[in-house]
Amino acid sequence: MDVAKRMERGQHLLERMLGPEQAEAVRMSWRQISPQFEEYVVEFVAGEVWSRAQLDLRTKSLVTIAAVAALGRNLALDLNIRMALNNGAGREDIVETLLQIAPYAGFPACWEGLAMAQKIFSEADQKT
Amino acid sequence: MDVAKRMERGQHLLERMLGPEQAEAVRMSWRQISPQFEEYVVEFVAGEVWSRAQLDLRTKSLVTIAAVAALGRNLALDLNIRMALNNGAGREDIVETLLQIAPYAGFPACWEGLAMAQKIFSEADQKT
Amino acid sequence: MDVAKRMERGQHLLERMLGPEQAEAVRMSWRQISPQFEEYVVEFVAGEVWSRAQLDLRTKSLVTIAAVAALGRNLALDLNIRMALNNGAGREDIVETLLQIAPYAGFPACWEGLAMAQKIFSEADQKT
Amino acid sequence: MDVAKRMERGQHLLERMLGPEQAEAVRMSWRQISPQFEEYVVEFVAGEVWSRAQLDLRTKSLVTIAAVAALGRNLALDLNIRMALNNGAGREDIVETLLQIAPYAGFPACWEGLAMAQKIFSEADQKT
Amino acid sequence: MDVAKRMERGQHLLERMLGPEQAEAVRMSWRQISPQFEEYVVEFVAGEVWSRAQLDLRTKSLVTIAAVAALGRNLALDLNIRMALNNGAGREDIVETLLQIAPYAGFPACWEGLAMAQKIFSEADQKT
Amino acid sequence: MDVAKRMERGQHLLERMLGPEQAEAVRMSWRQISPQFEEYVVEFVAGEVWSRAQLDLRTKSLVTIAAVAALGRNLALDLNIRMALNNGAGREDIVETLLQIAPYAGFPACWEGLAMAQKIFSEADQKT
Repeated sequence: MDVAKRMERGQHLLERMLGPEQAEAVRMSWRQISPQFEEYVVEFVAGEVWSRAQLDLRTKSLVTIAAVAALGRNLALDLNIRMALNNGAGREDIVETLLQIAPYAGFPACWEGLAMAQKIFSEADQKT
Repeated sequence: MDVAKRMERGQHLLERMLGPEQAEAVRMSWRQISPQFEEYVVEFVAGEVWSRAQLDLRTKSLVTIAAVAALGRNLALDLNIRMALNNGAGREDIVETLLQIAPYAGFPACWEGLAMAQKIFSEADQKT
Repeated sequence: MDVAKRMERGQHLLERMLGPEQAEAVRMSWRQISPQFEEYVVEFVAGEVWSRAQLDLRTKSLVTIAAVAALGRNLALDLNIRMALNNGAGREDIVETLLQIAPYAGFPACWEGLAMAQKIFSEADQKT
Repeated sequence: MDVAKRMERGQHLLERMLGPEQAEAVRMSWRQISPQFEEYVVEFVAGEVWSRAQLDLRTKSLVTIAAVAALGRNLALDLNIRMALNNGAGREDIVETLLQIAPYAGFPACWEGLAMAQKIFSEADQKT
Repeated sequence: MDVAKRMERGQHLLERMLGPEQAEAVRMSWRQISPQFEEYVVEFVAGEVWSRAQLDLRTKSLVTIAAVAALGRNLALDLNIRMALNNGAGREDIVETLLQIAPYAGFPACWEGLAMAQKIFSEADQKT
Repeated sequence: MDVAKRMERGQHLLERMLGPEQAEAVRMSWRQISPQFEEYVVEFVAGEVWSRAQLDLRTKSLVTIAAVAALGRNLALDLNIRMALNNGAGREDIVETLLQIAPYAGFPACWEGLAMAQKIFSEADQKT
């Protein structure tokens, strides 16, 4: 497989997980800060790692949320909560994932994750 | 619900997730370092958080592995890989969870998780 | 002891450590993001862990500030600096705790903790 | 050597790495939150650690950016990106340092670092 | 004050907190890996930060244990548990400090801290 | 460019940075724990990220050491100290990098990094 093909696969997957508009918006924001960063995320992270077949997208979303919430990486947490909702995870799944990691990463990490989830859920409700 | 009931529920769940011998062994090790620590883990972590109904045990195992691998907490990582195998996660699920978090927590965190998983898998093979 | 009793004990302790209004405000914010999160914090974190007798509340506040500042968990840091002031810790105690951890968690973690402490102290001064 | 001499050396180095105005501004902000913190940073961090001769300032800036971006310490990251630009590191050097650590600290840490770098670069462009 | 005086003060404090033999042993181990590291720890960390007057040594030990346990820094955790026992903290104080941070840094961090504390306590018992 | 070419480039770079024997040994260890992990590290981390042209290999080694030492990732720290010595970094450069991050990531992180560096330097001396 060549890199261009991975890039295409990553682009399609991002569009599926974010919707075409949000996918373009986040890619644009990456491109502005560094075209290489955009490339690596689309090609390698989305087009390769996320494209692996063994785990379904919903499970991948939940384990990714667990990791980035534990590490307190807010930009990635925001993006991954949004993607999770398109990957078959319900709001409760996201909340329960954050509650599950509370004893492991600490309640403060859980709290920050829940606060971000709630903000995203509220925004979604107001759009409807 | 009272705390004693939670304790009982946590004890049963730990036995299910670790087998009765390993459950007793890890509880003994906790008791020796601090009886309160054992109580809190059995009652609150196992008997309450792990006993929540929304996510299945396999998913909970995978998100927990993601969080503790990201944080580099080795005692908990070892225990949670062992429990995952009794919670319906195959070896591949564990490996794929660790690969999925590589771009998020870094390849070094993934590497340490995979090395620990391999050690546990090898031990299991030698027992058979 | 049953869980309801712990809950009551946790509620009283939170009111003592935050004042009744702030206690209600933070509990409301937890309830909105997840009623289970509120329950766990009030019952287990406040009603059980904070209610242990061996260390006094002032010492517990300072060690908690040290841990959450080291981890960079800002929501919990803000809350714990406010609680520390009601738990018998003076402003200097909080500042000195953050200076003490500077060589251990790094000056940047200390800096972020001091900046948050100063913001809280200034707000308190303006209320008077 | 006495501490006052180190302090003087640290002050000169900070002025060189930040320009006299920004150096005064950041020192003032430290003084307001804690005079001891200002002293330690100027005397020990700048006047001693940064004043060591083996590595040049550009290399020191890049390794410091790598460490604080990995740890997600935003106040220090902001300051160190600004100092790097006066220490002989070009914008590309900073971007490449952040890309280099992406596989080690994770893409989310890299993303947050790049977003901050871009903000600083934009501000600089608007001043010109 | 000059640096040599701080060094002397730091050396005395280390001897008080570790006993003369252990103080010499740990300083020797630092000297072997880097004489500058030894100097900075003795002069700045012990002779300056630990020598501040506002907080007593027992409280400083407990907040330091909280920070390094939260961060999972095992060499520093081992040293600080040993020093705490000479700084007026009883074994229960150390255990309670680690239990207090369990909900904040997570049970795995608490577990690793308790396991190390138990090892140190056992060694001490066997010497008697 | 296709992935196979990156893989080849990554393989050559690893051999250059580790020597052919150590490169094969570490690749074998990765292959045993997960062939995909080996692939990703050789192809993407070595063949793409490390192969970028802007920063020289010595600088890349030092910033990577800074990041993994800050995060406490020991397997990667060990590997990167070994590679740094083949990438034009002297022992002093490595020690100075670790001293430089002491105020940022904390002295405990620096200590663990220096201890590992010393172990690697000693082994190298004994081979000679």
